[in-house]
Amino acid sequence: MEHKKLLTFDSTLRDGAQGANISFSVEDKLRVIDTLDRLGVDFIEAGNPYSNPAEAEFFQRIAGKKFEHAKIVAFGSTRRKGIAPEEDANLKSLLAANTEYVAIFGKSHIRHVTDVLKAEPEENLAMIAESVRFLAQHGKKVVFDAEHFFDGYKADAGYAMQALSAAAEAGAEVLCLCDTNGGIFPDEAYTIVKTVCEAFPAKIVAIHCHNDGGLAVAASIEAVRAGARQVQGTFLGFGERCGNTNLCTLICNLQLKRGYECIPPEHLKDVYEAAMTIAETANAAIPANSPYVGMNAFAHKAGMHADGVLKYSSSFEHIDPASIGNKRKFLLSEISGKSAIYEKLKNYFPQLDKNGKEMTQIAAALKERALAGYQYEAAEASFVLLVKKILGQYKNSFDLINYKVINEQPAIEGKVASAIIKVRVNGVTKIAASDGEGPVHAMDLALRSALADFYPAVARVSLTDFKVRVLDSAKATAAKVRVLITSADSTDSWTTVGVSEDIIEASWLALTDSIDYALMTRR
Amino acid sequence: MEHKKLLTFDSTLRDGAQGANISFSVEDKLRVIDTLDRLGVDFIEAGNPYSNPAEAEFFQRIAGKKFEHAKIVAFGSTRRKGIAPEEDANLKSLLAANTEYVAIFGKSHIRHVTDVLKAEPEENLAMIAESVRFLAQHGKKVVFDAEHFFDGYKADAGYAMQALSAAAEAGAEVLCLCDTNGGIFPDEAYTIVKTVCEAFPAKIVAIHCHNDGGLAVAASIEAVRAGARQVQGTFLGFGERCGNTNLCTLICNLQLKRGYECIPPEHLKDVYEAAMTIAETANAAIPANSPYVGMNAFAHKAGMHADGVLKYSSSFEHIDPASIGNKRKFLLSEISGKSAIYEKLKNYFPQLDKNGKEMTQIAAALKERALAGYQYEAAEASFVLLVKKILGQYKNSFDLINYKVINEQPAIEGKVASAIIKVRVNGVTKIAASDGEGPVHAMDLALRSALADFYPAVARVSLTDFKVRVLDSAKATAAKVRVLITSADSTDSWTTVGVSEDIIEASWLALTDSIDYALMTRR
Repeated sequence: MEHKKLLTFDSTLRDGAQGANISFSVEDKLRVIDTLDRLGVDFIEAGNPYSNPAEAEFFQRIAGKKFEHAKIVAFGSTRRKGIAPEEDANLKSLLAANTEYVAIFGKSHIRHVTDVLKAEPEENLAMIAESVRFLAQHGKKVVFDAEHFFDGYKADAGYAMQALSAAAEAGAEVLCLCDTNGGIFPDEAYTIVKTVCEAFPAKIVAIHCHNDGGLAVAASIEAVRAGARQVQGTFLGFGERCGNTNLCTLICNLQLKRGYECIPPEHLKDVYEAAMTIAETANAAIPANSPYVGMNAFAHKAGMHADGVLKYSSSFEHIDPASIGNKRKFLLSEISGKSAIYEKLKNYFPQLDKNGKEMTQIAAALKERALAGYQYEAAEASFVLLVKKILGQYKNSFDLINYKVINEQPAIEGKVASAIIKVRVNGVTKIAASDGEGPVHAMDLALRSALADFYPAVARVSLTDFKVRVLDSAKATAAKVRVLITSADSTDSWTTVGVSEDIIEASWLALTDSIDYALMTRR
Repeated sequence: MEHKKLLTFDSTLRDGAQGANISFSVEDKLRVIDTLDRLGVDFIEAGNPYSNPAEAEFFQRIAGKKFEHAKIVAFGSTRRKGIAPEEDANLKSLLAANTEYVAIFGKSHIRHVTDVLKAEPEENLAMIAESVRFLAQHGKKVVFDAEHFFDGYKADAGYAMQALSAAAEAGAEVLCLCDTNGGIFPDEAYTIVKTVCEAFPAKIVAIHCHNDGGLAVAASIEAVRAGARQVQGTFLGFGERCGNTNLCTLICNLQLKRGYECIPPEHLKDVYEAAMTIAETANAAIPANSPYVGMNAFAHKAGMHADGVLKYSSSFEHIDPASIGNKRKFLLSEISGKSAIYEKLKNYFPQLDKNGKEMTQIAAALKERALAGYQYEAAEASFVLLVKKILGQYKNSFDLINYKVINEQPAIEGKVASAIIKVRVNGVTKIAASDGEGPVHAMDLALRSALADFYPAVARVSLTDFKVRVLDSAKATAAKVRVLITSADSTDSWTTVGVSEDIIEASWLALTDSIDYALMTRR
């Protein structure tokens, strides 16, 4: 039987933290929990209190906290072989974690019992039953994670089901079927989950997939169709190897297209922002082509597609991007049709004629700059300046006479870089210098110092983001470099781009665009 | 009926080129075609000859070429409304492309016919039939791409089937069902494809999905289970918005796990290399967590998982990575267990004791360096040098007395950067200088010049790759920067890492590690 309310279970902080390059500080964890809670996720697995003292302390720290929606879950394992539950340090740490829910994993694959755990089949069943019973008797609600369940079911269905029975009879509330190696196909998931749901009608069956075959979201959907009532994953798919089920994609698919309620419907529009917050906290970028929340998930490049979307939005969009808080986007590229370019520009240049010769010049300039390595998809401010130049509306804020940026070791009073910049503004020459943590830092400070007397507004602008991409990295240190700089003042933020074989020059170009843009929008 | 031999159809050069940041030069296209052909892909859609003259010329250029396995396909559309096929410039360009196969798309969704094309339903069917017949009469084998087929089928199944019938009766060889908006679920794909296969038993039914729901590979698998005999995609999933079906993932899934033959079995081990070549040609990185071919697809981080894999490889691996040419990997991270670190080091340090106190020191150093922003996952050479320092086996090749790197505008004789470096080797002081395209280029050349008299081997080392990552980009230009440098000589290649707030210092650290490593392995 299908259930329309599904329980969502996020393991970003536990299984997600197994991913390469993913780690969370205490502050990061609190921010992720807060974000997921406000979105309306039901369960948040916050870590393994036995793995190290910092994790155990973290559970103490959040023990008193009230959440709007979510229950915190502590993760651990069944007791060790040949030891009583009350003597098992791992189980004791789970009690000490002071959460209403605990999740423990145990083996359900016969070969893992005999070959890895090196235990008798019966002993493993006793480990499961006694551990679940111990926790339940101490008032915990228990999620039993049946490790390698699907592979185990294929190897020996009877034993895999016995492992679930051991947990169920001992009082587990949730039987979680884990595809630990990530190889399960959607049709197999459907068949096996259906069998389990029919065998344990009184229990909540959960699905926990890994994405090694690129099928985790699909297998989870099929599991739900077969009767699973809890969906587990990590919000952005973080996790070891190819990651876990991407919970964000799964929620959007199930709720927008199948009518399930995974999170409260009024929070669906916050999915995009939640994804951005979690990505930023994990210091990871969301891949641009990610379903639903990727920067390009609703981006249109080909002239014909962009035209089609403007005529009839469902031409090339499977959902309304606004329903989850994302936005339609037209990519500026050398193959952009004029429709897409015009859409981007019409707010800045209301007089621009969509079919005029200036649009042709703009499209040609875009193509030429793309060949030189420029990309304006993220650097709209530089694109607006480029168009102003083409339209004859550009006036530069200053002339550069010369700059000199020096890096040296040993450092002088702890500073490795210094910059001297000489500019001319309205016939007045000004020279300024600064040191800095690196060459671009020194250059930025020196330029602002040189311009401050002429343009006090420059002092209110600060750089908030700096990205570097080596374009043809196989040319090694003689390769072209693209620098993106994001700047902000109290009311606005904008991104500019510079390209050169010299990283200092590329940074200089992005920096001057940033200042030009700031001054232009304030005139 | 299921068919065990499946036809593979790659559209990296056509639909893939619609992806953001993806574009191919003529040389790139030839390289992609060669790579796919050698892998044994059946069809390669190479472009749309009508879209611009360069595309048309490209078909002329490859018309005479012989391929081992693949057929080249030219892509276009059905004739325009109200025009005879023989007068339609697009259809004529398809004939001129001189390929055995052509693919044309036409509408199969009633609302797209009435609202976007603004044509009568009958007129659209005539456009399909006449276009297919025209091409078939001129000797072409025709793939009919039914655009928006699945959404069209849901809106008006009768009309969607009529569109296929029009193409089938006019002589199309392949009926390709396109999920143009990328929203189809696997179970829907199964049901609808089965209906189509039963209605057109004499035709080859193809499946063409987009990944907007993260379900393209899964839906394609279900389509095959329902009787589809041709699978379409782009090799690495490139494509507009969230991309197309990742053909590489699909082939690995179907061939390794379901016993289909997508490519000749003896070429399966070349999948990884083909993926790398295509990514490099497209100047795109394969996401580290990509199924099968990602750098981390078989990477183990958690101590327990790494231990498990060493005991019993199928513990945490769904396939043998070697079967497709990928490799198992142990990640070096602050949470790496000693097993994983030891595995990495045992070839370099055969005397190292897995359980000795030196391993504890190494694990602690790794943790400390990770906090400082170092990552050794890609920079094994720097890790080996770090371990040598811990073990007291390191001897530096030179002492740096000082360096000074200067960037300036205006450039001097076209060079923006110059570097002066003073080193001491065995008590002898040497100063050298160079200019360059950028500061790191100048520094690299100056350092090699300073060391050449002492170490002639240094002249044979060249830098082959240079990557920059801003670590905490929100600190803008005062953020920490991680530089990775890959170096090579005639027999080997190695990667080193440096981290600093100063990009010049970070590059310097990676550069000196590179030279230390080169000299160390040659002593």
